[in-house]
This record gives sequence, structure tokens and C-alpha cells, in this order.
Amino acid sequence: MPYSPPEMAEVPLQQIAITDAFWLEYQRLVKEVVVPYQWLALNDQVADAEPSHAIENFRIAAGQADGEFYGMVFQDSDVAKWLEAVAYLLAKSPDAELESTADRLIELVGAVQQADGYLNTYFTVREPQQRWTNLAECHELYCAGHLIEAGVAYYQATGKKRLLQIVSKLADHISDVFGPDEHQLHGYPGHPEIELALMRLYEVTSEARYLLLTRYFVEQRGSSPHFYDIEYEKRGKTSHWHTYGPAWMVKDKAYSQAHLPIALQTSAIGHAVRFVYLYAGVAHLARLSQDQEKREVCRRLWDNMTQRQMYITGAIGSQSSGEAFSCDYDLPNDTAYTETCASIGLMMFANRMLQMDADSRYADVMERALYNTVLAGMALDGKHFFYVNPLEVHPQSIKFNHIYDHVKPVRQRWFGCACCPPNIARLLASLGHYIYTQRPDGMDINLYVASEIVTAVDGKRWQVTQRGNYPWQDQLTIDIDCDGPLPATLGLRLPDWCAQPQATLNGQPLDPAALSQRGYLRLNRRWQAGDRIELQLPMPVTRVSAHPRVRHLAGKVAIQRGPLVYCLEQADNGSELHNLQLPDDASFTLIAGRGVLAGKTLLQAAGTRYAPGDHGGQPLYRFDAPAPVSSRQKLTFVPYFSWANRGEGEMRVWIDRRPSGN
Amino acid sequence: MPYSPPEMAEVPLQQIAITDAFWLEYQRLVKEVVVPYQWLALNDQVADAEPSHAIENFRIAAGQADGEFYGMVFQDSDVAKWLEAVAYLLAKSPDAELESTADRLIELVGAVQQADGYLNTYFTVREPQQRWTNLAECHELYCAGHLIEAGVAYYQATGKKRLLQIVSKLADHISDVFGPDEHQLHGYPGHPEIELALMRLYEVTSEARYLLLTRYFVEQRGSSPHFYDIEYEKRGKTSHWHTYGPAWMVKDKAYSQAHLPIALQTSAIGHAVRFVYLYAGVAHLARLSQDQEKREVCRRLWDNMTQRQMYITGAIGSQSSGEAFSCDYDLPNDTAYTETCASIGLMMFANRMLQMDADSRYADVMERALYNTVLAGMALDGKHFFYVNPLEVHPQSIKFNHIYDHVKPVRQRWFGCACCPPNIARLLASLGHYIYTQRPDGMDINLYVASEIVTAVDGKRWQVTQRGNYPWQDQLTIDIDCDGPLPATLGLRLPDWCAQPQATLNGQPLDPAALSQRGYLRLNRRWQAGDRIELQLPMPVTRVSAHPRVRHLAGKVAIQRGPLVYCLEQADNGSELHNLQLPDDASFTLIAGRGVLAGKTLLQAAGTRYAPGDHGGQPLYRFDAPAPVSSRQKLTFVPYFSWANRGEGEMRVWIDRRPSGN
Repeated sequence: MPYSPPEMAEVPLQQIAITDAFWLEYQRLVKEVVVPYQWLALNDQVADAEPSHAIENFRIAAGQADGEFYGMVFQDSDVAKWLEAVAYLLAKSPDAELESTADRLIELVGAVQQADGYLNTYFTVREPQQRWTNLAECHELYCAGHLIEAGVAYYQATGKKRLLQIVSKLADHISDVFGPDEHQLHGYPGHPEIELALMRLYEVTSEARYLLLTRYFVEQRGSSPHFYDIEYEKRGKTSHWHTYGPAWMVKDKAYSQAHLPIALQTSAIGHAVRFVYLYAGVAHLARLSQDQEKREVCRRLWDNMTQRQMYITGAIGSQSSGEAFSCDYDLPNDTAYTETCASIGLMMFANRMLQMDADSRYADVMERALYNTVLAGMALDGKHFFYVNPLEVHPQSIKFNHIYDHVKPVRQRWFGCACCPPNIARLLASLGHYIYTQRPDGMDINLYVASEIVTAVDGKRWQVTQRGNYPWQDQLTIDIDCDGPLPATLGLRLPDWCAQPQATLNGQPLDPAALSQRGYLRLNRRWQAGDRIELQLPMPVTRVSAHPRVRHLAGKVAIQRGPLVYCLEQADNGSELHNLQLPDDASFTLIAGRGVLAGKTLLQAAGTRYAPGDHGGQPLYRFDAPAPVSSRQKLTFVPYFSWANRGEGEMRVWIDRRPSGN
Repeated sequence: MPYSPPEMAEVPLQQIAITDAFWLEYQRLVKEVVVPYQWLALNDQVADAEPSHAIENFRIAAGQADGEFYGMVFQDSDVAKWLEAVAYLLAKSPDAELESTADRLIELVGAVQQADGYLNTYFTVREPQQRWTNLAECHELYCAGHLIEAGVAYYQATGKKRLLQIVSKLADHISDVFGPDEHQLHGYPGHPEIELALMRLYEVTSEARYLLLTRYFVEQRGSSPHFYDIEYEKRGKTSHWHTYGPAWMVKDKAYSQAHLPIALQTSAIGHAVRFVYLYAGVAHLARLSQDQEKREVCRRLWDNMTQRQMYITGAIGSQSSGEAFSCDYDLPNDTAYTETCASIGLMMFANRMLQMDADSRYADVMERALYNTVLAGMALDGKHFFYVNPLEVHPQSIKFNHIYDHVKPVRQRWFGCACCPPNIARLLASLGHYIYTQRPDGMDINLYVASEIVTAVDGKRWQVTQRGNYPWQDQLTIDIDCDGPLPATLGLRLPDWCAQPQATLNGQPLDPAALSQRGYLRLNRRWQAGDRIELQLPMPVTRVSAHPRVRHLAGKVAIQRGPLVYCLEQADNGSELHNLQLPDDASFTLIAGRGVLAGKTLLQAAGTRYAPGDHGGQPLYRFDAPAPVSSRQKLTFVPYFSWANRGEGEMRVWIDRRPSGN
């Protein structure tokens, strides 16, 4: 079958040094707080947190401890994600103690691997005879995928092959078990992840079988007769999950994007994390196998998701039931699920679309998800996390109205199902992979994160240095260093939120409009050491309006500056945020955040409030419907990612417009 | 214990002849369509409806048929409610065939009664040894209550004592089983109903034990140690309902208003139907036992419910989970449960408050619930019903977003749990009980329903005739007939929605303001035959605004004319109702409804629509936030009770205000 040799679109993290004030703080948190804290959690050494038992499961499966498996059927993936995050940290800065901890853990993982390559603590400990009998519900391939990602990352970071060999053996076992032959299982995962993992393994090993296996999983998906039904019958209709009734995961095939072959799928549907994980893998496969049809499927579904079902914060998943998409333009602010992991998966999908197509619309969404929902998933202290990221919160109602049972008004320490925290850790630790995309003829800058990257074009060193104080300031400098003249193309993303980008090259003005190709300012020239690009991305405070079909946003605006979406919090604006309006002609002033918000830019504008003062005694309904009394009130907006760091209170992103003249 | 002799606040239905065009049609529907249809349903003779099996359960329990009990544990109550509705019909117009059908059914019910008086088909057939072991969950006292109400009604309607004797024997059995003595159970129902039923039985029998038993149930409620826990332990922790986990009804005591003694309860809480049924009984008890403390409890909870947690349509129950209240000012329009039965129970509670306190605020809410939510519960064809009565519906989202799983965009034929349809039937058939309240010194008119009532003051005949075309027209005539001068007080309710009522007596203008006492125009005089009151209740189209704390209604108005709340439907206004605005200065014109809405007054006003035309291709978000393009559009409002009679489509009650000058 035709496929191109792997193109390493990702620059190894070792070649990227992040110097950005905004991101260094997060990377410090990941290294000094999140990863050590999560290691304690995985080892059940956090006093006031839910037990994890994840490491203990491995000890038991390895025969090094007695006991029973405890936790989710996918508990192994927490360990894998932690290892992957550690790999990214080690790639950036050696840490002998951390590395030896990781190496010992890797040996433990290896000790769990069976002779045939199988590796999963749940089934090894609890149901050794039931391997591969419940793909729809039991996450074996999902856990394998995360382990494979960790193996690839750890090899890339340390050059050590031990974990890579373990996961390659696991992948080989899987490719023996699954496939078109009669003796093989014709199935595919209930929770996608193995697909994108196998493609990463393919990139580092060049083993075609991994690409072929990915393609098999992708092309089998949704075919008839349905594999989930076949295995369900075969195992005597046992079911692992009963959340919405027995075998609901088997029956609701759209939940796993297995209701139709992907070629026939036309809209984002089902469990949001599954959706973006699946199509991240499909996009990666489409690129490396130059599969035009799959590329079109990815584009079509990307457009439906981002142009019909995505929140302004780059969040996806409009409903709690099934942690799922809803339908076009159904974007409730308060009952949304909008899981942190879903926005991380959205970034993964976006990055792979970007590697396939140099089109800034993918990077625009990637940046939106990163600076808003993904960052909001973690408290500024690095120790508390959100799964659910609503755009409107009313704490009192959360206590009494069960439509809000999934919503937390403040971040929690740890979770029994701990998918999000380690996902944030590995995302932040691997940020370099999202900043730049390597192209055969050069490189694109997707994210403006101050950093230094050393890459090569035609084997010649090419060093690019970004400087700036993004996302707070609009002035960016890009310096080039290379040995002698180097012909290459440098792409600079022109963000969707920026109306009038300006640029100079060595002091000479450039015409971004003229030089723009699909949202990137493309500079194709013979680069010299000392070349300097000054890029200015003016970030006036912008009012965002939504499509007229979004009934929850009629008459409202959201506030954005640069890549940051802002919100109103009770801490600054008092309660009853629904009674506040922003006049269309109000202008904004930038102010410096204080206390826990120090270093962040807040926004203020002269607004109005309906029915000020105490009105508890007023009747519930009035039949004269007086024009509401309104008073002037200064409105203070804080970056959405920093909300709920000052205790419990109301929050909302979308605020009522006050048309001029009122 | 001190108690006053029963005061018959309710005038027997035989003495009330409804002549009102609006209501005669509904009473015709009940007699010719609803009651016959429900008889077929109870006998499982409706082809395309869910089975009921309710009558068959009685046959099996009576030993007249073989088989197993089928249906809800409270299936008996459907039969009782049907019998009660039939009684009201027979009271109005004799019907030999219907009466003999009812008599045969009553004999069947009698055949199910055990020697000791016990009567319940579920326990008799399925768990004879488990009687009275699960009050929290199993509705025995609830079913008994409905049977008692039927017995009282059938006796009042026909003078026949058979069913009254059956239910009296049942009530006597219950009063033997429950009480303070050591050998008695110290429990009370999980679903209130027996309380108000026993009070009705007390009124027709003057048996003090029924009032004492009611008081025992009411005063035991919520005491510690908690009876639900005691019986739960005693029966080995078995549980009948698992909707929200095992024994959730036992654990969530607020769901049954059993979390605290009623004297300590301060807000409407839990299952909305349970709440209003309970306090209807408490109010009845408070009146007849002249219990000031219970009267205050009723007033306090009434005020919380109607001034913090009631929808403009007289609907209650803000959430689907537990079909329950939420918290103060949490009134979502689209996810509300707002059960038809809850508004019927609200009318029952209101009527008893009114009998205790001649204050129009109770009648105002009673009228609001009746003309809006209760009537909306039944289709204009009398054959389709709503359980859930939202104030905003978006059919497309209902299909995909599970927060709407309880919402139906159009009425259904019948339900497995069929509480609402027979409840509507008995309410409409007994409407006379709500129109008038008899007082020792005269009578109050609560509802303006054209009718003729023959009552007595000091044993002297006093006949009052209402004429008019309410709720469509504001002109009412009340004619008096009596034998010789008759000193009496006639109270005419001055509705909360009416700013300037006008009245004349025999052509002489009256001053409503001066003569008004707690919302009733009180005329205390020596009445003569031929006295005529002309009452005008101007009903301009009114904009209703909500309390500023209701975040779902900020910047919105509802439209009301007379007692009718109006709504926008897609059928008249196109889709995307959220893009419509009503200018503050727009005036309304009245138009005649056509087709299925013939005979109803619709409203029209010049409004505006944002973003008209097809905009499917527009981006989901725009960063320039243009002032929305808006065009003029005629808005058509239909009475809320008549919505969804023209197929599936969007509907909303609250519409965005467009401030003058925009």
C-alpha cells in the first residue's frame, strides 16, 4: 500500500527552549507541583484525596504485591500519562532522581507484560480469561494507546529503549490479535486513542504494520454487522457500565462514533473526548498515508465541530449525559460538560490537521482551547482541577438544581476518575510540539510563545528565536540565526482575532495581506544570521458575537483580548451578574491584576446594572412591567482561565449588550 | 380537643349550573371524550396506548380473574380518580349507563376490600405479608386517599353510600393501624394525599377520628427518630424505587417534605405534587381545627412557593430530577418539570387557603394555574396530555440534548404512569368547587365563570347568576334572586392583573378601592330579587416582568391579558424565536384565532427580528460584534394553554424586550 516515509512534523522538544514568562510559570508548576503531586496520588499518598491505587494495580499484576485491582477499568492510563509527562520534563531538563523513579516504574510496567506481549492490569488481575472480549466498554486498547504514547515520548526524551520495546511488543501483540484474517478479531476500540498512539509509534519506528493496524481500526469502525453487538452476544451479554442502563455503551454506538463508517459521518457526535482522539488519529493516518478521502472526512467533521458545536472558550461537549456533543448551535452556558480533556484532545486533533494542512484555522482553534479551557482546567496553584468548564455558574442553583450535578463551582483536588489532571500535565510539558510545525521547506510558527528553536533545513542549522510578552502584549520579535545564507520558508500565523497585523523584516515594512497564505504570513527567502522580524498583533478588546442560531447567546457578547476570553466574576462585580449590561459604546481600560491575579491583565468598562440594591421583598411578578431602573456600574473582566481562584461565586462569559442610546 | 363543627365551604355541585361557553366545552370534552376514553384505557382497550391494567388488578385482587399485578405501585389511584371524576359528572347530569358502570366498578372495589378493611390491589396480589411495611415508597396511604375522595364525591353526587361505607371502613382500619399507641404504627405517608382525603371524609361524616388521624399524620411528619429509617431497617433494607439509587426515597427525606416537622419548614421543597397535596390537607386541618400555628405554616410556605418558586403560568417544580422544586428564583424555562398534577394540587391548596382566609392572593394563583398550566395539560381534542409544561421549547435540541429527556414537544396519548389525565378530568368536572366559596354570612366569587348557584344564608334561598364571556371579555353581570330581603355579604374577587376594576350596583357606581377587603369587593347589604351588579375588569394586554433575581428572565417580558398568559409559537412566527424582540412601546391588536384556535383571542404586535433570513453559512463567532441587523416582524401570541395544538415547533413565553429608541 502506498504511504510516504514518515515526515517528522514535530520538532524534538530537546531543540526547543521556552523562555516565555507566561509559560515558564506553568512548566515550573508541572515540574515542581503537578508531577510530584500526581506521583503521590498514583501511590495513594495524598491524605485528603480519593484513592488512585494505579501503581498498586501494577504491583499486584506483576506479582510483587497481594491484593485486588481497584479503580476504573482504565486506571492504567493515569500511570501512562504520568510517565509521558515525565518524559517531556526530562527532555527539557535532566533530573536523575525523577528519571530513576521513572525507570523503576518502567521496570514494573515491563514486569506486568505477559509472554505474548499483552499488558493491562485490570484484565491480568481480575479477568485474565476475558481479554479482548469487551472492546466497546473496557478500554484495553485505550490503555495500550496511552502506554505506547509514553513509550514513544520516553524514548524521544531519554534515548532509552526499554519502554519503547515493551510497548512495541504490546503493539505487535495487538496487531496479531486484530486484523482482517479469519483467526483475528475484526474489532476496534470503544474509546479511541490506540490510533493516534500507533501513528506516533510508526513515526519513531517506521514499522508499516503500525500504520496498517491504525488503518484497519479506522476502516473497520462502524461496519456491519456491528462488532460491538457480535462480541456482546459472544460474551453472553455481560456489561461493564450501567450508567444509563445495561450495555448502554454497546447500544448507543454514536457515543463511540461507531454508528457509521467514518466516511459517512457528517457531524461531531457522541463522547467529545472519544471524538477528538479518534480524529486526531485519523488525521495523522491521512497525512502519512496521503489518504485524500480521510483528509476530507477530517476537514468536514472539523468544520462541523468548530463552526456549529464549539464554545467561544474552545470547549466542546454541550451536555453532561455521555459527556457528549449535542446538536448544531445547541450551546448552553450553564449545563455544558465541556471537559478539560476534550479541549486537550481538540488541540491534538488541531495539531495533526495543521501538520497535514498549513491552514491557520486549525491553529486558531488550538490557541483558543489552550489559553482558555485547557488552562482553566488547572488552578493557579497547580493543585486543583476542573473536569467541567461551564461558561456560566450560579453556585446557589448548583446546590439545589440537579441539572448542575456535574458542575463544580471551584476546582477539586483529585478525582477517582483522574483523566484530566495528568492530561493537563503532559499537554503543558509538551507545549513545544504545538508551537512549531516543521515543513520540508521550513517551519511555521503556530503559537507565539517566547522560545528558541534549533532546527534544520536541508541539513543546515536554522535557529529561530521568538521574544515577546504574549498574550499580554502585542509586540513580537523573531530573530534568525544560521550558518551562511539559508533558503527556507518561515510561516507566521496571523490570528483570526487580529484585524490588522503589522510586520517588518530588518526594519522594512511587509504587507501581511499580500504575503498571507491560508492565514500564515509566509516569508520565503535566503535567511541570514541576524535577520529580524518585528511582528505586531494589535489586541484591542473585542466584542464577540455568536451565530444567530445559538439561542443561548442572543443579545449577548463575549469579551476577548488577544487569545484570551474574559469573564465576569462575583468577586469583582457582585452577585446577580445577569443584571449587568455592557453598553455597545463602552470603552475598556486595561488594569493590572492583584493578589492571586498579579501579573494578569484585567479589563474594565463602564457598564450598567438593572434593579440595583436589595429587592428581596419585591413581588415575583409585576404586571406593569416598568422599564428596569438601571444604575452605572464599573464592570471588571478577568481572563476566563483564571476564574474561580478567589473562592466560590457567580461567573459568566456572555454578558447582555446594552444597545447605544439606552 | 377543640374543633369547630364542619363548615361546608364547598357548595354542592348540584347547586351550581355552569353556563359559561369557555368551560361548557371543556366539561363536554370531559364527559364525552376524556372519561369514556380513560375508561377504555383503564380497561386496556386503547390500541396504541401504554397498557394500564388498573381494572384488571382489581379483578385479580377480588379473585375474579387470574394473573399478576401489573403497573405502578399506585395504579389503583387511576381508578379512584376516574370514579371521582364520574361522580362529579353525575352530580351535574344524571347518566344511567355511566352510573351503572360506576356502581359495578364500586362493587368490584368492595370485593377487593379485606375483612379488616384493608384495600390495595398491589399488596393484596403481590405482597400480602408486606402491608404497611414501606410507607416511604409504596403509596398505600396515597391510594387509600384517592379512594376516599372518590367515596366522598360519589356519595355527594348520588347519595349512594356503598363506596362511602367501603372507604370509611378503610379509613377506620387505617386509624386502627396508625396512631400514638404502642401497638400502632407511628408512621405517615411517603406521598401525602390521605390527609386531604380524610378531611373531606370528616366533612361529610363529622367523625372526629378522621380529623384526629389527619392531625396525627401531619404532626408525626419529620419527627425523630425518623419513621422511614425505622421501617427501612425493620424490613431488611429492601427498596422499591431505584431511580436515583437504592432507597433514595427513604434517604432524601426532603423529597417527601419529611426532612423536618412541618412547623420548622420554611420553603417549598421536594416533589412538587407531594408538597401541594400535603399542605392542602394541612390547610384543611388548620381551618377545621382552628389551629393558628398550622395556619401560619401554610401561609409561610404558600408565600415562599408563590413568591419565589412559581412560574408565571402557575406552574411549579423547576427541575426534572425528583419532579421537584429547586431553590428561590431558580426558574429555568426550558428544563422545568412543571407537572400538570402539581398545578392541580396547587389549585387544591389554594382553594383550601381561600376557605380559611378570604384573601384574593390565593384565588389569583388558583386562577393562574387553572387558565394556563392545568388547561395546557390537555390538548384541545381532549385525547392528548402533557405531564411536563415547559415555558420554552426547542424541538431540535430536545432530540439531542438529554437535559430535555423529560420534555415532549407535543402531547402524548396516555402514560404508563397515568396520574395527570384523570387528575385533569376530576378537576374540570369539579370546577364548581373552585368558583365559589361559601361563608357563614354569604359567599365569595373567586372565578368569573358564567354560572348559576343556588345557596342559602340563614336557611333562606339565595341565588346568584354570573353572566359574561370570560376570559375573553371584561364585562360581567351578576344577578341576585332571593325570597324577600336577605342580609348577606357577596365578595367579588378583584384580580391581581386588573389595575382598574369598575362596578355598579343597580346602575349606581361603586368604589371598588373603598369597598375592597383583601382583594375582594365586599357588598354587605339586604339583597333583593333583581339586584344586579355590573362588573368590569378591564383586560388590556399587559407586559409582565420578573423579579430581578430570576436570572433566566432578565431583560425579558411575558404577555398576559386577563388571566391568560400568552406565548409565541413557530407556527405563527417562524423559527428562532430567541431572535424576536418586543419593543417597549409596541401596542397590541386582538385578533380571532382560526382553525383549531377558532374562538380564541390571539394578540399581535409590531416587533423585530435579529439577523433575518438564511444565515447558516455565517461563522459561529464574529470578532467585530456588529450591532445585529434587525427587521420588522409582526409578532403573533397565542394563549399558552392552547400551544402545541398545531404540530411540533418552537415555543416561548418570555420574549426579549426591545427598549424604546432601538
